[in-house]
Amino acid sequence: MIAKTPTPPYYAVIFSSTRTEGDNGYSKMADKMVDLAKEQDGFLGVESARNELGITVSYWRDLNAIKKWKDNAAHSIAREKGRNGWYRSFKTRIAKVERDYEFEK
Amino acid sequence: MIAKTPTPPYYAVIFSSTRTEGDNGYSKMADKMVDLAKEQDGFLGVESARNELGITVSYWRDLNAIKKWKDNAAHSIAREKGRNGWYRSFKTRIAKVERDYEFEK
Repeated sequence: MIAKTPTPPYYAVIFSSTRTEGDNGYSKMADKMVDLAKEQDGFLGVESARNELGITVSYWRDLNAIKKWKDNAAHSIAREKGRNGWYRSFKTRIAKVERDYEFEK
Repeated sequence: MIAKTPTPPYYAVIFSSTRTEGDNGYSKMADKMVDLAKEQDGFLGVESARNELGITVSYWRDLNAIKKWKDNAAHSIAREKGRNGWYRSFKTRIAKVERDYEFEK
């Protein structure tokens, strides 16, 4: 659900995507990548939702943690499969979270 | 769909939320707020998806444009209604997009 991130600053990777038709192993790989991301040093949390558009925001301590996750071998293979099959289009944005505020009933 | 934003830097407002039961006028107001946001100076685009968790990311030219949208009267009323009824919880993160890259088949 809503990620419990620390006090800013920290980083967000906003990944917005549209999918091709059919699952074709996508959901299983997506779950696996979330599990793997959670094990990485500097990982702070992840939020995900999908309708026609999918948005996954992962949160990281710093740019170095993001770079190491990008270079992770299993993640690189998954991204390659994404480009070759699962995704019709995507856009990745690397952003520095400067402040946040929250509400809970 | 995926927002066509300019070359960074620009700002993202990442709004993650969980809803209370029932629509109660929420969808109509959400559409209205997106229409209104699009008219604001400095608005660059918006992306939205919802399952159990909803994620709306709006993109803005700078912090001043975000502040003006926050102070918009109709938007302030909508936010108040959100806290009083539509949302169970939310978290807003203000983030500076430092770089982005995209893919399209």
